[in-house]
Amino acid sequence: MEPTTQEYVERVRALLEAGDSDALAAFLAEVHPADIADVAQELDGEEQVAVLKLLDTERAAEVLTEIDRHSGQALLQLLTARDVVSLLGEMPSDDAADFMSTLPPETTERVEALMPEAEREQLQELMEFDEESAGGIMAVEYVAVPEAATIRDAIHMARDRADDIEDLQKIFVVDGTGVLVGDLGVLDLIVNSRSLPVSEVMNRNVLSVPVDMDQEEVAMLFGKYDVLTLPVIDALGRLVGRITVDDIIDVMEEEASEDIAYIAGTSEEELGEPSVFKVSRTRLPWLITGLVGQICAALVMSRHEASLRTYVVLAFFVPLIVGTAGAIGIQAAVVVVREIALGQIDIKRMGRRLMKELQVAALNGMALGVVLFFIVLAWLHEPGLGLLLWSSLMIVIFVAAFIGASVPLLFQRWRIDPAIATGPFIAVVNDVIGLTIYLSMARAYLSRLL
Amino acid sequence: MEPTTQEYVERVRALLEAGDSDALAAFLAEVHPADIADVAQELDGEEQVAVLKLLDTERAAEVLTEIDRHSGQALLQLLTARDVVSLLGEMPSDDAADFMSTLPPETTERVEALMPEAEREQLQELMEFDEESAGGIMAVEYVAVPEAATIRDAIHMARDRADDIEDLQKIFVVDGTGVLVGDLGVLDLIVNSRSLPVSEVMNRNVLSVPVDMDQEEVAMLFGKYDVLTLPVIDALGRLVGRITVDDIIDVMEEEASEDIAYIAGTSEEELGEPSVFKVSRTRLPWLITGLVGQICAALVMSRHEASLRTYVVLAFFVPLIVGTAGAIGIQAAVVVVREIALGQIDIKRMGRRLMKELQVAALNGMALGVVLFFIVLAWLHEPGLGLLLWSSLMIVIFVAAFIGASVPLLFQRWRIDPAIATGPFIAVVNDVIGLTIYLSMARAYLSRLL
Repeated sequence: MEPTTQEYVERVRALLEAGDSDALAAFLAEVHPADIADVAQELDGEEQVAVLKLLDTERAAEVLTEIDRHSGQALLQLLTARDVVSLLGEMPSDDAADFMSTLPPETTERVEALMPEAEREQLQELMEFDEESAGGIMAVEYVAVPEAATIRDAIHMARDRADDIEDLQKIFVVDGTGVLVGDLGVLDLIVNSRSLPVSEVMNRNVLSVPVDMDQEEVAMLFGKYDVLTLPVIDALGRLVGRITVDDIIDVMEEEASEDIAYIAGTSEEELGEPSVFKVSRTRLPWLITGLVGQICAALVMSRHEASLRTYVVLAFFVPLIVGTAGAIGIQAAVVVVREIALGQIDIKRMGRRLMKELQVAALNGMALGVVLFFIVLAWLHEPGLGLLLWSSLMIVIFVAAFIGASVPLLFQRWRIDPAIATGPFIAVVNDVIGLTIYLSMARAYLSRLL
Repeated sequence: MEPTTQEYVERVRALLEAGDSDALAAFLAEVHPADIADVAQELDGEEQVAVLKLLDTERAAEVLTEIDRHSGQALLQLLTARDVVSLLGEMPSDDAADFMSTLPPETTERVEALMPEAEREQLQELMEFDEESAGGIMAVEYVAVPEAATIRDAIHMARDRADDIEDLQKIFVVDGTGVLVGDLGVLDLIVNSRSLPVSEVMNRNVLSVPVDMDQEEVAMLFGKYDVLTLPVIDALGRLVGRITVDDIIDVMEEEASEDIAYIAGTSEEELGEPSVFKVSRTRLPWLITGLVGQICAALVMSRHEASLRTYVVLAFFVPLIVGTAGAIGIQAAVVVVREIALGQIDIKRMGRRLMKELQVAALNGMALGVVLFFIVLAWLHEPGLGLLLWSSLMIVIFVAAFIGASVPLLFQRWRIDPAIATGPFIAVVNDVIGLTIYLSMARAYLSRLL
């Protein structure tokens, strides 16, 4: 098997300490840039620079785009503006724009001053798009030929750009005004006679995405149509860029991290964040929201102080009621949000989806209620309390499922990210409502009893 | 913009009812198979068959692979074994194997009896691999040339298979025993002279994955190395298949769904499942686990009955203690699990990662404790109770963070899926432990007071 990152790191450190640049350069030449980036993440800033200087600019640029933003901070401080400009020149435009956006503002200014004008303008244009839109993830390196071109012309264009575009998939065909009218695969260049015009070979039913489409939607289209690359068009239908599926993999990881972070009550940004203070600051607002909600739960309980005093056993089941309400709510919310994310929910049929969730809740409420009834009977020998718990648990479960499923559906309709509805906010709402139901039913039960 | 699925469905239904097969066939010819699949999911079995019969076999096969398993059940009942055989013949081998595995056993037998022997053997071999391994997701359609071949030979091979392999990326080069020794891109076929031997052009540092590698690891390699296709090799290094990035997108969706389902206490399998009973059955075991845990919480509370009787205010803050313990535990667990999934945690440095989590817990425990202290002071004017809550909340948070972060790390070391540790089981453990800490501290506090 391949050596592990740790083995690479030890090797690189040993060669750095021995000061044997030639041996280190020879060693690094055999390692994939993505692996060098993994190694670099374990090194300090000085060591990172020493490693980068031993690579040719193209490979150094690849390493730089792979290092994550947290580990690259020290390195950025040590690079001169001139270094950055030459590295940017070797990056695909989408990576270059991403990289620029991680630079501190004063470096950005110095870098822009040193850049060739055409390159600078291109980058600035790219950086103006919303980071999470098709424009924000597209590259401007693509091969486009006019309709009148022949296969031979297209081959020449593809050859010219072979160095620039690592994984060329599609040749795009545009009309006189730059509007995208078709595409052909690289294989079409080989299979067809060189004298044929591209317009006879091209696929006219070409899929494309508008430049302002959200990246999550773009990712869904890649998944649905199983394509490796999609052209990006402006409002007039003109070709402006191209998105490849390897960028979509990053988008999908990011979106999944975002959705998962919402459930936990934190933000995707804390992943890999080394600063304890930043992590704490990211999580605290969610925790404080929860705390305030739980104070409301304490208020609800204080309003039922009399019941709790006369019949302290009621308190024993408070964790069960709030715990189950929370669990039911999160099941409903998370499943609905995931189905929305996978495009499995037709938003026009929200009612049907909600109904399914309520039916599941009715079944599970019944099942859990029975189990609870018999446990309480065996433990406390009080069938009345058992029935109270059974019935209140069923109602609590029903309401928690309703809230858990309907809030994300409503958010989706109101165009708020439904993933927010999976977080601690919904959990605490369910706690408070569940508690109110349970204690109100308990009060009614006690008033009959006494 | 493109018409919505609903608009397509209405159009198709109208044409089906009018019995106008020609118009429907003409309409369907313009629609992408993935969109036809979306439409088919809204139709009943009879209508699905009527639509499929109007497509040519190749497109019908594409539609069939895109229909999800839940919506395709009725359709499968209506297709003859002969239909299935001809559809399978048009599918890429990986899709064909997946499709076969969804058939009921008796259909499988009839289909296998009708299949050409070579095709059947190939499929059976593919189906023997673990569904979640490289072998389980690879296709056996690839272009491999011997080392001695020229670029011209490779072009001929590629042309021959152009129909079979939609998005040909790489030509693989193998030695006399079938061992993978290199690869070249389709563009290399165009850029180089046709008389050159492939061995002079090929990349010798070819990345590959072993046939038994877990699909999640394969997905990670695609993400790391930004490749569009990877060859699959057996234990002897012989080329046996190829994985393309569009299959990886499905893997990533599946793995993200799995991880998210664990957090919610359910299974990825329920997504899109129309049967209320199956959904209920999927979720119930997790809920029962939670219920049993909450009964333990009730037992803990019953052991502190005396404290609760003398000082009922203690009960008011039970939801706060268990709610916060749960929230802190899930934050720690989910973040650690996600970092493991993204390959951001070096398992050798588990101690360091755990320490970070405890530092965050100390900060957040302090912050939440202060807030709680002042709220309690303002509400109940009891500084003693405020201090009790502050101190016990801090300890509860610290312990919950320790459990939340350490259990997934241990699971990872023991090679158990760490995602399991994000579920309701950990939440309920934290509830019970948190409650025990809180009530024990309260008892000590009361004994001093009285």
